[in-house]
Amino acid sequence: MALEDLGEFGLIDRIVARLGDAAARDITVPPGDDAAAWAVDAGVAVATVDTLAEGTHWRRDTMSFADVGWRAVVTSISDLAAMGVEPGFLLISAELGPSVQLDDVDAFADGVAAACDCYGVRVAGGNVAGTPATSFSTTAFGTATAAGDGSPLLLRRDAARPGDLVAVSGTPGASAAGLAMIEAGRAEESEAEPLVTAHRRPQARIGLGRAAVEAGVKCTVDISDGLLQDLGHVARASRVGVEVDAGAVPLHPSALALLDPERARELALRGGEDYELALTAPAATLGALTDGEAPVTTIGRVVAEYPGEVVVLGSDGRPLEQPSGGWDQLRTARG
Amino acid sequence: MALEDLGEFGLIDRIVARLGDAAARDITVPPGDDAAAWAVDAGVAVATVDTLAEGTHWRRDTMSFADVGWRAVVTSISDLAAMGVEPGFLLISAELGPSVQLDDVDAFADGVAAACDCYGVRVAGGNVAGTPATSFSTTAFGTATAAGDGSPLLLRRDAARPGDLVAVSGTPGASAAGLAMIEAGRAEESEAEPLVTAHRRPQARIGLGRAAVEAGVKCTVDISDGLLQDLGHVARASRVGVEVDAGAVPLHPSALALLDPERARELALRGGEDYELALTAPAATLGALTDGEAPVTTIGRVVAEYPGEVVVLGSDGRPLEQPSGGWDQLRTARG
Repeated sequence: MALEDLGEFGLIDRIVARLGDAAARDITVPPGDDAAAWAVDAGVAVATVDTLAEGTHWRRDTMSFADVGWRAVVTSISDLAAMGVEPGFLLISAELGPSVQLDDVDAFADGVAAACDCYGVRVAGGNVAGTPATSFSTTAFGTATAAGDGSPLLLRRDAARPGDLVAVSGTPGASAAGLAMIEAGRAEESEAEPLVTAHRRPQARIGLGRAAVEAGVKCTVDISDGLLQDLGHVARASRVGVEVDAGAVPLHPSALALLDPERARELALRGGEDYELALTAPAATLGALTDGEAPVTTIGRVVAEYPGEVVVLGSDGRPLEQPSGGWDQLRTARG
Repeated sequence: MALEDLGEFGLIDRIVARLGDAAARDITVPPGDDAAAWAVDAGVAVATVDTLAEGTHWRRDTMSFADVGWRAVVTSISDLAAMGVEPGFLLISAELGPSVQLDDVDAFADGVAAACDCYGVRVAGGNVAGTPATSFSTTAFGTATAAGDGSPLLLRRDAARPGDLVAVSGTPGASAAGLAMIEAGRAEESEAEPLVTAHRRPQARIGLGRAAVEAGVKCTVDISDGLLQDLGHVARASRVGVEVDAGAVPLHPSALALLDPERARELALRGGEDYELALTAPAATLGALTDGEAPVTTIGRVVAEYPGEVVVLGSDGRPLEQPSGGWDQLRTARG
């Protein structure tokens, strides 16, 4: 069957059916009305939107529509993880280019459903349109938990303080290394498999974000634009300097096995699409974070010097020469 | 200055500055962090997303980027109006194609700001990406008010009942007539001006949706996909039939003056992008709705016969032969 035969509303019905338990059928207004509605307690609502556009964020030769569906969920809920918030509901806006087939939409829905099942989130609604190009935008919603005094427990970019250590979860650069393997035609090599999975089926660190909130961490950012770039946001928002010890950034063993060490390190510092978290906190607070879903490694410190800057230090403790940059949605796509 | 020189984060700062009072700077987490956060009371959260893609929903020769910004707000908050909900905050995801210039983004932000000012909503966050094609997706949030028993007051598609009258606000087809004038090169004719404005700067019927809730109306839909198409959603969701008296549908006087009467009526029945509301309710309930921001006209009735169908009746009370259809996001774009 062709998409245009099914029509917009037939397709929406089909997607909702295909989502299975990932469709929020029992909320106040489930998918299918002008808007979705669900009950909320008094508190602080947290919401974010992110987009995956074909040609910019993914290509058909680098990932399947099922992978795109998975990542459309992860990319948004990762932003809630970085706030220390448990995600609850999603709205997904699907823009379907002329070449998208019904099988592609089915596969996308399957990927969404798999990620929803993994993270305990559900689709409350969305939108479907036939458009000149293909992209998916996901809005994710959650509610912040409250401290004893009722204030919301949220992890902020502007809460880094001199004296904090800087830590990162997992092995940054694994996603970019996976993409490099795919592009080099080496995706089938067994050693490449964990990297390819990191690219196609990244994990959102929801549990870590929640654990960080509980441990008293105040400052976290997700590093989907690249470790240095996203630490730069922390440095600017907090008006502090950030020092990163290049040798301390944990590299994926497969990246070290398959890539030149310099290249592996470069991808760890600048590669995007790792949905890991970078955190800053006093040493005792970070120490209270037990390794849960991913190891957390100390990679540097927050300083009062050079506010707004991120400096990468070599093994001698002196700054390495660093071109600025990372994944910039405009510069990378248009530059 | 070029967009790529400014970069993603420079552009976000510029947009937030340009939004002025339309940027929600005083919420718990204002634009600029991984996610936005704001305080909510206990109740029912209502959320919707809609997309305006270049080439599908607008073209540069039919509307300016400022018009697109206006409509990016109206298209989403209209869905909340159709639920009887006052909109509060927006997230805007901007996908900027290669030809988009900084002036275009500025104009878009100005249009967003103007609509936000008009409707008392604010932008809490969003996303910017450089992509192969241009589109804007807006997520709108509100909270349902509660009835005396605490249940949420929401207008649903599935609440039409046999015996209800069917009514519509404003003059459906005005937007489509405006587009026809623009495409015919007649946009500058003074008689065309209200139609062109209806297309480029449509109004969302927030006040009417709220008034309908207060008056006890249960069933409303926005008719942005065309009057008959959207009444079809009501018919199917409510498992009722809907009869529309063709002669009762109010036409804009300028559409009647400028277009063939048959064409004007056809656009009123099927033209999309009127952000008017269609309502069904007992006559006494509809009678309690005073004309506020737009007149409300009775155009038909809900019947128990032919559930799921919409039938258009001629002046003799007999069904007119009607091709099915209206604006379908897939069939119209791809068919």
